Amino acid sequence: MQELKDTQSEADTRNISIDRVGVKGLRFPIQIQDKLNRIQSTVATVSLAVDLPEEFKGTHMSRFVEALHQHGPLLDVHTALSIPRELLGRLSASRSHVEMEFPFFRAKAAPVTGREGLMDYVVRFEMEAEAGDRLADFKLTVVVPVTTLCPCSKAMSSYGAHNQRGIVTYSVRFASRPVWIEDLIDLVESCASCSLFSVLKRPDEKWVTEKAYENPVFVEDLVRNVALKTQSHSAFSWYRVEAENFESIHNHQAYAVIERDLRS
Amino acid sequence: MQELKDTQSEADTRNISIDRVGVKGLRFPIQIQDKLNRIQSTVATVSLAVDLPEEFKGTHMSRFVEALHQHGPLLDVHTALSIPRELLGRLSASRSHVEMEFPFFRAKAAPVTGREGLMDYVVRFEMEAEAGDRLADFKLTVVVPVTTLCPCSKAMSSYGAHNQRGIVTYSVRFASRPVWIEDLIDLVESCASCSLFSVLKRPDEKWVTEKAYENPVFVEDLVRNVALKTQSHSAFSWYRVEAENFESIHNHQAYAVIERDLRS
Amino acid sequence: MQELKDTQSEADTRNISIDRVGVKGLRFPIQIQDKLNRIQSTVATVSLAVDLPEEFKGTHMSRFVEALHQHGPLLDVHTALSIPRELLGRLSASRSHVEMEFPFFRAKAAPVTGREGLMDYVVRFEMEAEAGDRLADFKLTVVVPVTTLCPCSKAMSSYGAHNQRGIVTYSVRFASRPVWIEDLIDLVESCASCSLFSVLKRPDEKWVTEKAYENPVFVEDLVRNVALKTQSHSAFSWYRVEAENFESIHNHQAYAVIERDLRS
Amino acid sequence: MQELKDTQSEADTRNISIDRVGVKGLRFPIQIQDKLNRIQSTVATVSLAVDLPEEFKGTHMSRFVEALHQHGPLLDVHTALSIPRELLGRLSASRSHVEMEFPFFRAKAAPVTGREGLMDYVVRFEMEAEAGDRLADFKLTVVVPVTTLCPCSKAMSSYGAHNQRGIVTYSVRFASRPVWIEDLIDLVESCASCSLFSVLKRPDEKWVTEKAYENPVFVEDLVRNVALKTQSHSAFSWYRVEAENFESIHNHQAYAVIERDLRS
Repeated sequence: MQELKDTQSEADTRNISIDRVGVKGLRFPIQIQDKLNRIQSTVATVSLAVDLPEEFKGTHMSRFVEALHQHGPLLDVHTALSIPRELLGRLSASRSHVEMEFPFFRAKAAPVTGREGLMDYVVRFEMEAEAGDRLADFKLTVVVPVTTLCPCSKAMSSYGAHNQRGIVTYSVRFASRPVWIEDLIDLVESCASCSLFSVLKRPDEKWVTEKAYENPVFVEDLVRNVALKTQSHSAFSWYRVEAENFESIHNHQAYAVIERDLRS
Repeated sequence: MQELKDTQSEADTRNISIDRVGVKGLRFPIQIQDKLNRIQSTVATVSLAVDLPEEFKGTHMSRFVEALHQHGPLLDVHTALSIPRELLGRLSASRSHVEMEFPFFRAKAAPVTGREGLMDYVVRFEMEAEAGDRLADFKLTVVVPVTTLCPCSKAMSSYGAHNQRGIVTYSVRFASRPVWIEDLIDLVESCASCSLFSVLKRPDEKWVTEKAYENPVFVEDLVRNVALKTQSHSAFSWYRVEAENFESIHNHQAYAVIERDLRS
Repeated sequence: MQELKDTQSEADTRNISIDRVGVKGLRFPIQIQDKLNRIQSTVATVSLAVDLPEEFKGTHMSRFVEALHQHGPLLDVHTALSIPRELLGRLSASRSHVEMEFPFFRAKAAPVTGREGLMDYVVRFEMEAEAGDRLADFKLTVVVPVTTLCPCSKAMSSYGAHNQRGIVTYSVRFASRPVWIEDLIDLVESCASCSLFSVLKRPDEKWVTEKAYENPVFVEDLVRNVALKTQSHSAFSWYRVEAENFESIHNHQAYAVIERDLRS
Repeated sequence: MQELKDTQSEADTRNISIDRVGVKGLRFPIQIQDKLNRIQSTVATVSLAVDLPEEFKGTHMSRFVEALHQHGPLLDVHTALSIPRELLGRLSASRSHVEMEFPFFRAKAAPVTGREGLMDYVVRFEMEAEAGDRLADFKLTVVVPVTTLCPCSKAMSSYGAHNQRGIVTYSVRFASRPVWIEDLIDLVESCASCSLFSVLKRPDEKWVTEKAYENPVFVEDLVRNVALKTQSHSAFSWYRVEAENFESIHNHQAYAVIERDLRS
């Protein structure tokens, strides 16, 4: 085979290092080990990147994809950091960044009839590693759809209250050991007017309607409820919670955000 | 200037004519003349296409963009068909197709306080023309967000009722003269539990909450209400109405569709 | 338990039947049996609907989700129609419609080095059934990303030729037995300037660059190539092929469509 | 009129202040004054937010929308900060945040024939203000589509080179006076293999094809070129540049990011 020029390895004279270079929008089937120790198959959208020192013209893009394939599909909150660590060696990098976002499912029983259905969530892993183990950052995000019922609308109206689907995007860093995805979802769902279900029979629908009416929350309440529960845990070193309400009375969203570093 | 090869005009021997060839995803600033005879500036996403007979290898893509630029930004429901007609000549085509989708705004006063705010909708023009005026099809679509409150949830529950934002996609063809975009939006909004507003003060919020509670509709009711009003008009020769509810109790949508040809 | 009102089953007096009513945007983990007889786990976005006669006020939305759960995750091109058939009975409907869209993966070896990587595609099943087996429609769609290199740019330029990623959306109905998803993908990929790969080492990149340069295609050529291959098969009773090029020299897309009924 | 309860103004006892609360996804027609002193009409997607001290239960969402309406549609890089400043007073806030994203158009002549066409870009304003003028942050982002041609593919291949549409997202903060949107776009376009055009006749297509072939850039080169030009200006105090290539040979993207604070 002829010798092919390795343009990427050429010297670069611009004296500008690159913070992050890699691939994005790669779809890859993965398996998540869940709290019940079961394996859940899903499909992730992945990005993989490393830093690039100023002296090199380019990185070797195919190695990112190879690293992902070699790691294989199995992933859990305890071992996820192995992927960015593999990148460090394979790309001769001093810092690496990996992001994986995927749908995550839980069997959830309807509140009165107990009928089971799968609820879907979005989960995101963001991981960074540095050579020499100087850094190992793991940020876990769950995107949890919920019901929110407006306290102001309830307080003013002779009957009824506007309510809607809201989306809570909840990200955490762990103080030490990771917390299960399922526990983060439970935490968020307990802070809304009511949680969502995929199957609801008539007695269940009555139950969720009344429960939401009894638990009105603004987006402000929702993020504060999540903040309080997070801060009362010792498991977290940082969190960010954003609630976004797809208002049933407007064509725009209401939103609120709290972010806190919990390291003293 | 050297003579450049015109690859598109070469003969094709595959004996397969092409139904539609052109450009898509082109953004273009337009001006819509509205019912109050005012000019509204907005931005359209445009596609332009013609048929291609089996004997030609390709069409001339730049001519589509030139035709759009030459037509200029002004558009209304009465003159829209001039764009596909211009394509016929410019591309030597026997059939042409143009689609334009854009945000459309209306000043709308809050129901009690009268505070004005702009409500945004999506409007789509789909137009077809044939050489020799054998065809001139104009399909007008309005996408109208509304409030829907669930009749079943209201009937069963001791208090409250789940409600949510729904999206109604309403398309019509006209029997003769076009109907104003604003009138189509009014028709749809009058069929929902309540319509949406961009500005609502507290007395307005009480009003929309109670109005929605007094007017519960399933997606089935919503499309039937729109269907009834459409059929009672003599203005339309065809319609399609789809309602999609972003259920506040589920993470999926409920939807319903009715489509009818009204030519006897 | 108290007797809860069944609002949906009430009589409706508007005399308007509904073409399609159901749920949309439901995410569900599925398993696809592929050509190699292996089971592939992925995640589908599902819609399920039935017609509704004019005499009923509403359908029972929870039954759609229950039908999907009861069917279970396993799906293949031969048995897919069982889902719409189950809906007919469960919803007492005369016509049902099911749509499932999901990422689909294939191991694909790089053309020179043979390195394997997973290529991702999008696959869509659209199925309709009618009571009494009067209808059983199955439309299979594969969305295949490819390389397209412009013949005109190549013919005119002293060196180089603009090329880009294109997306081919190819839908078929079968004359009798279904064709494997993999075979439809192969058919489309063979019609482009070159097919895509997830892993390419330097000798592979040289190969795909030169192959694309040797095989320039317009969007017009691409859809005609697919059309020719489809028509030379006896397996299909109908097809539609759309090619959309994300032009590297424009900020809009070029596109072309051919649709044909092949029943004589 | 009856006295309606003001739930938002009630006391909150959770002792958690909220970083940002407001509205999102609001569409609003705006007018941008451009470098040629012309007014360009377009449509923005807007978010408006303030901080909320721990002692208040909620903010007053309608005031955000009223503030936007009262400001009116006219916007330019010099006066944009007036919107967040208005929010401070109207919402009794100590900090406010406004984001506006909109399509932006420029007439651009084809390189050989001089034919004019409109090129579309995306522009984003992100603005923060603090009470007492302690802060006035303005971040301007332009999203510029370009052509990128791969240096490695060109170096290795006997003919041709893969190229594709890339997207450069370029954000800056100004050292003192703002720089025109048009100048930021020019800066980015000059760093790519070639810039894009909406209208290209055959001689123009030959020109852009050859120009791209003569100027191959990796995503790494593209962000470094933008970085160099930014750093050689005294106009900027901070920048971030991200390039994302929709690779014509892969179904994923290559990307690179550089971010620098330029205050010494």
